[in-house]
Amino acid sequence: MTQPLSGVRVVDLTRILSGPFCTALLGDMGADVVKIEPPGDGDPVRTNGAIIEGMSWYFAAFNRNKRSVSLDLRSEAGRETLARLLKKADVLVENFRPGVLAKMGFDEERLRQINPRLITASINGYGSTGPYVERPAFDFVIQAMSGFMSTNGTADGEPLRSGPPVTDLVAGLYCAFGIVSALQARNNTGRGQRVEASMMDGIISLFAYLASDHLATGVVPRRAGNHHPIAAPYGLFTASDGELAVAPSTEVILRRFLRVLGMEGVLEDPRFSSNALRMQNHAALDALINARMEGESRQAWMDRLNAAGVPCGLVQDVGEALSDPQVLHREMVVDVEHPGHGTVRMLGFPVKLSETPCRMRHPAPDHGAHTEEVLAEWCGEDRPRAGGP
Amino acid sequence: MTQPLSGVRVVDLTRILSGPFCTALLGDMGADVVKIEPPGDGDPVRTNGAIIEGMSWYFAAFNRNKRSVSLDLRSEAGRETLARLLKKADVLVENFRPGVLAKMGFDEERLRQINPRLITASINGYGSTGPYVERPAFDFVIQAMSGFMSTNGTADGEPLRSGPPVTDLVAGLYCAFGIVSALQARNNTGRGQRVEASMMDGIISLFAYLASDHLATGVVPRRAGNHHPIAAPYGLFTASDGELAVAPSTEVILRRFLRVLGMEGVLEDPRFSSNALRMQNHAALDALINARMEGESRQAWMDRLNAAGVPCGLVQDVGEALSDPQVLHREMVVDVEHPGHGTVRMLGFPVKLSETPCRMRHPAPDHGAHTEEVLAEWCGEDRPRAGGP
Repeated sequence: MTQPLSGVRVVDLTRILSGPFCTALLGDMGADVVKIEPPGDGDPVRTNGAIIEGMSWYFAAFNRNKRSVSLDLRSEAGRETLARLLKKADVLVENFRPGVLAKMGFDEERLRQINPRLITASINGYGSTGPYVERPAFDFVIQAMSGFMSTNGTADGEPLRSGPPVTDLVAGLYCAFGIVSALQARNNTGRGQRVEASMMDGIISLFAYLASDHLATGVVPRRAGNHHPIAAPYGLFTASDGELAVAPSTEVILRRFLRVLGMEGVLEDPRFSSNALRMQNHAALDALINARMEGESRQAWMDRLNAAGVPCGLVQDVGEALSDPQVLHREMVVDVEHPGHGTVRMLGFPVKLSETPCRMRHPAPDHGAHTEEVLAEWCGEDRPRAGGP
Repeated sequence: MTQPLSGVRVVDLTRILSGPFCTALLGDMGADVVKIEPPGDGDPVRTNGAIIEGMSWYFAAFNRNKRSVSLDLRSEAGRETLARLLKKADVLVENFRPGVLAKMGFDEERLRQINPRLITASINGYGSTGPYVERPAFDFVIQAMSGFMSTNGTADGEPLRSGPPVTDLVAGLYCAFGIVSALQARNNTGRGQRVEASMMDGIISLFAYLASDHLATGVVPRRAGNHHPIAAPYGLFTASDGELAVAPSTEVILRRFLRVLGMEGVLEDPRFSSNALRMQNHAALDALINARMEGESRQAWMDRLNAAGVPCGLVQDVGEALSDPQVLHREMVVDVEHPGHGTVRMLGFPVKLSETPCRMRHPAPDHGAHTEEVLAEWCGEDRPRAGGP
């Protein structure tokens, strides 16, 4: 069975998170991803997070569907081998700080000379040009600089980073989208090009109406916790056994919500007769709703609200979410055999294709496990000597 | 100049946010996106958010590079016209609740009959199969159900949704990645297929080490505010004129940070001599660091820390971020002329391609502005009558 990127050769110089996520997405789509790791410890994530039977499950998740080649890019021999691999590659992906790859002797001009069909992709913090090009970046810092944190948190609390490191992952996903688009362009032009995704550009692009309303009015969006900035009631409500998230985003859905509660009458109350008034008096309205909801369980309300078409949900923790029947049904948690390291449980594929789906072709590789194999396969007779150990 | 998706025809049945974001990404890459809107008000976002000279800037941002065709899909004539358009299309994108399109008469089998090369893409809340298929979804609810909220917030506060509606946008971005991958697959197979991205699958896929560590250990990740779950010091610190985000994620970077502060000696202090001890006594360590940082301005510290390679940044609000010199340099804020509605300022392109870049080809369309034009272009002699007004 072929996959969308079957036959596409990716030289993967990335490390840690944003880059390996991007190349895992390409590998899941069928690309032949060769992860180049320095001799010694290799990708630092190999020793990060929980390690079972010698395998970091964090590393395993983000390096599935890749092979590992050990190459010392600080040595001339290693760099020569890299050049030979690039000659046979379709895509190069790196997440060094801007300029690092050029200092190793691989600037854009040299890459074009080595292989004019090569797509060269970079994932970085702020972009490879501009006043901040020299600054080191990190998810937390990009969350602060981008404005994301300023909108995340409660009105009376401090600006907060998000739980997961979203700026890394969003940049990796954008880069994967850019790379596949550049492959599509190459079908017409015959030439490669440079693709770039930055953590800063990526996270800003997710601001949606927070950005458009600010640009239109100059008003700066503020943190609003779980309250909706423009609708009430909205947020977390308290059933007999815990909290329920309810999002009646329109007047129609609000009426359905109140009907399920048997509280349609509150719209006659002069304190709650318009959205503007409800926003103003939301604490009083929330108290009335909570008083009603406390009489029954979360599940009882969930069943009725879902049946009535009112978006609602439990506030699940990560353990509950990853054992949720819907999440399991969607195969978003999968078990992968890692010879020598047992079975690793990891997240599944977030995008589903019916005919050429994402597949688990290989587990994450041991460090340098495919050095000889890849050099023989890609470079054949012209097989170089690895610069690694 | 051709773009990666030049010549790719997209029939866009999406509305509100996740779908229009996906098709805007395709349009930015050069696809010919035809937005089908019902007669009357059209996409509800046309009347949402700040409106200037009759144009919602929220609508304008998410519907650039599209044309609008008014079509009443509740009428037989409208559905026939849709079928004729689909015959000439490469991609169909919709973000209805699962089953709605089939109820209109366009199930997968009929779509395959109409056009076997058609890629049919769906963006939805929980996926189109499984126990939650009937549930209405909404960003806030998916944030709750997915576990995202459980990790977002402070240790002593409630679970919080993120500021921006990230689950909508991430699902739209995954769908765009899936569609371009399916186009790539079609180059080999000659056939279309179904692509699906759900908000729930998408946001879970961003959990990174929160997911892998949980799956490995069974330990449930908790909210940690701006503190790093496994390193201290880390977070917001107080300079003379405000807060600074500092992320010394490794021992090497921590030493650089302390050197800039002139505080390397604290590592000799038995309370702070290992990361585990620093985690335990982080309040005392933060107080020492703040006492030192309060002596100088944010900018003074930023200059020194960046020069020393310590990731750090200001906590900018959305207004500051969207006028940040780096963000402007990257053209992440652009002005687009909208004839009849003045100039609309919106976010730029988050992924940069050097040879076939994203471009602003058209402003967001007036409702139904291209009904005749598109039917003539795509269906020619065989031009159907629009079901719309």
